[in-house]
Amino acid sequence: MIKKLLIANRGEIAVRIIRSAKEMGIETVAVYSEADSEALHVQLADEAYCIGPKLSSDSYLNFTNIMSVATLTESDAIHPGYGFLSENADFAEICVACNITFVGPSAYAIQKMGTKDVARETMKQAGVPVVPGSNGIIKDEEEGLKVAKEIGFPVIIKATAGGGGKGIRVARSEQELKKGIRVTQNEAEKAFGNPGVYLEKFIEDFRHVEIQVLADNHGNTIHLGERDCTIQRRLQKLIEETPSPAITEDMRAKMGEAAVKAAKAVNYSGAGTIEFIFDKQENTFYFMEMNTRIQVEHPVTEMVTGGVDIVKEQLYIANNEKLRYKQEDISFKGWAMECRINAENPSKDFMPSPGKIEMYLPPGGLGVRLDSAVYPGYQIPPYYDSMIAKLITYGKTRKEAVDRMKRALDEYIIEGIYTTIPFHQRMMIHPVFVEGDFNTGFLEKYSIMDKE
Amino acid sequence: MIKKLLIANRGEIAVRIIRSAKEMGIETVAVYSEADSEALHVQLADEAYCIGPKLSSDSYLNFTNIMSVATLTESDAIHPGYGFLSENADFAEICVACNITFVGPSAYAIQKMGTKDVARETMKQAGVPVVPGSNGIIKDEEEGLKVAKEIGFPVIIKATAGGGGKGIRVARSEQELKKGIRVTQNEAEKAFGNPGVYLEKFIEDFRHVEIQVLADNHGNTIHLGERDCTIQRRLQKLIEETPSPAITEDMRAKMGEAAVKAAKAVNYSGAGTIEFIFDKQENTFYFMEMNTRIQVEHPVTEMVTGGVDIVKEQLYIANNEKLRYKQEDISFKGWAMECRINAENPSKDFMPSPGKIEMYLPPGGLGVRLDSAVYPGYQIPPYYDSMIAKLITYGKTRKEAVDRMKRALDEYIIEGIYTTIPFHQRMMIHPVFVEGDFNTGFLEKYSIMDKE
Repeated sequence: MIKKLLIANRGEIAVRIIRSAKEMGIETVAVYSEADSEALHVQLADEAYCIGPKLSSDSYLNFTNIMSVATLTESDAIHPGYGFLSENADFAEICVACNITFVGPSAYAIQKMGTKDVARETMKQAGVPVVPGSNGIIKDEEEGLKVAKEIGFPVIIKATAGGGGKGIRVARSEQELKKGIRVTQNEAEKAFGNPGVYLEKFIEDFRHVEIQVLADNHGNTIHLGERDCTIQRRLQKLIEETPSPAITEDMRAKMGEAAVKAAKAVNYSGAGTIEFIFDKQENTFYFMEMNTRIQVEHPVTEMVTGGVDIVKEQLYIANNEKLRYKQEDISFKGWAMECRINAENPSKDFMPSPGKIEMYLPPGGLGVRLDSAVYPGYQIPPYYDSMIAKLITYGKTRKEAVDRMKRALDEYIIEGIYTTIPFHQRMMIHPVFVEGDFNTGFLEKYSIMDKE
Repeated sequence: MIKKLLIANRGEIAVRIIRSAKEMGIETVAVYSEADSEALHVQLADEAYCIGPKLSSDSYLNFTNIMSVATLTESDAIHPGYGFLSENADFAEICVACNITFVGPSAYAIQKMGTKDVARETMKQAGVPVVPGSNGIIKDEEEGLKVAKEIGFPVIIKATAGGGGKGIRVARSEQELKKGIRVTQNEAEKAFGNPGVYLEKFIEDFRHVEIQVLADNHGNTIHLGERDCTIQRRLQKLIEETPSPAITEDMRAKMGEAAVKAAKAVNYSGAGTIEFIFDKQENTFYFMEMNTRIQVEHPVTEMVTGGVDIVKEQLYIANNEKLRYKQEDISFKGWAMECRINAENPSKDFMPSPGKIEMYLPPGGLGVRLDSAVYPGYQIPPYYDSMIAKLITYGKTRKEAVDRMKRALDEYIIEGIYTTIPFHQRMMIHPVFVEGDFNTGFLEKYSIMDKE
């Protein structure tokens, strides 16, 4: 078994990983930037080492320093968390070369799924439905126009190397398309060093429904049901839940099957998520992308599966063990919801609000889970992601999960900074949200906060 | 439906009740003593009223003041929590007389179960196994001696009006018995105004296994499985868990059936607990007593039943609704454990340690629940029970629940006072405890803490 695990991350996910490792009796090594010396993950790990200055590029993305700490501490595995190096195929390869277990899939799978047009083609060949679009990278505007006419406007222009809402552009007419292709190619060249773009039919308002998969190194792949992450602001998820209020039992089975197929197509190993566009009008779904890592919203799945600990499963899989669950062992009970608590002012266009936390008291009681890395007196640094906590509630029904979330948000005291708590409080009593019948256009359609 | 609920209690259970009421959309009224003006339950309730000085007898036990607040605020129901007025038949009757719903059973059921020898006889008649002993109150020493010879020494002398470890005495010989009867009678006369004592065979080391029941006003009674509360110090429970590591599926069914029978015998309504002595050698069980109220350890049951909210069920029942579950709806998954975090110094014979909480950070993450009423800067008053928090963990197996408890205890920061956290940390790695094979004599047999 893995004896010592280096966690190449920070914040709540570093704390999350340390927790599971501790419960398994695995020693933990934290790494941190100069801005994070007071961070909770540093305090909770058995050992902690500074890996560079505040900027991620100098610390949390610094291969050399991270590998040095791993070697120095004789860590036998590295968990990359999400973000940072988690979907970096080169890093995964370096780990292998250094004889250190990378807790995640192979560099091959990361590569295949990380290059968007390649992933799209791989899925098509595997029989996983993809959005109608071009056959891979388009050569020029002319080809783009031809494809757009075939599939119909609006279309979306996507950089194959893009991600995180960058290198993506909608075109609703021939003119917008021509210009869009040029601009996106230039942008992608600059941002990712790869100008390749491809086209897809733009499905305007949809439900974001994703399937959690687990796969071992022995050919076994299962899924843990879906998560619905339709509530997004500028492609950033804000609220996630499971089950999805939009899909049927039958659709869950179909999507689950497609997700397992997708994972198998790249010999996937570890925990991963297949994101789908679910088109409610058409009652059909399309492959969007695969996240080849643990996801922010994984806790909701843990809550409804009776406590399948996805991080522990990652570690067992990395340890070359067979999956500890068969598909038929997985059953679902109740409803779980997650609100991302960000250090942002929702009344000022979600402007980041780093600073010092004064009074702090998290909510508790039945059906309330908190994954966080903050504490009273903690100074939130301005250099990283603004998410400071994930508040998760479980209820027997969606109504109970929502009512409990409202109650927990009302209890949650964070003084000294602005947070997204007031936004979530309003969401939990918004009739359309409470009803459960919404799509990705929700936050554009409804104004939740009064502007200051 | 109940519109406004007065919570006639303090501490974590007041907070617990407020939480469920809020999730149900019920307005909440807190009451507090002069020592509790800064308490969390006061802050969380919609309204809060002072009901008297610091001593419970002047405040939390003050019928008149509590009923005045209920009337003044137009509360239509009172939840008594546990302790204080929760098992006071007179109080239950006064509520009824004032046309205010008492969230609990009838005065009749409280009375029947509160008088120990009456409860014993009632159970015998209902076919619930009781420990061999006298037929009700013994007339004199002579009768006592006769009974003791029949059932064999050691025997236990119990005041019928006793409770909480008072009015109870073991006798291992004729001499001890004679003296014991006199002393216990005198004690009981003074403490409870009732000198009646009865005898039972003393079962030395047993497992304390209890069954949670729910009953409505329409003749429906179900059980929610067992809790094992064998780890006790001077009859005070310290760690509770479910399922019990000591009983089989078959035994669970038998005890569940007996508990339902016991509740039906007194026309029970609401949430209640039948406590049993489980004799592992004999693989048999005996009725010990019934707690006609919510119990401290109810959360472990909520964790393994997929989130049955026992306080909500109390409120639905009090509202005259039919039980929302049939026996066959209740299923169990995983393992839950609760550690009582007391403001006590376990290295100094659990000496109470009230005072001001300085740094405070509760644990979080998957499978961790905290029911507490403290916060950073909170001054724990010395006048009440020393329990300040209940840390509950859930795992797929007992091992996972224990490992998770260990992890959560290690994370839990409470500075400024002593707590029982170090005691629980040692328990979670104690081989006999971890093995699960122990009885009520555990803490006398093993020395957990080094004395200071």
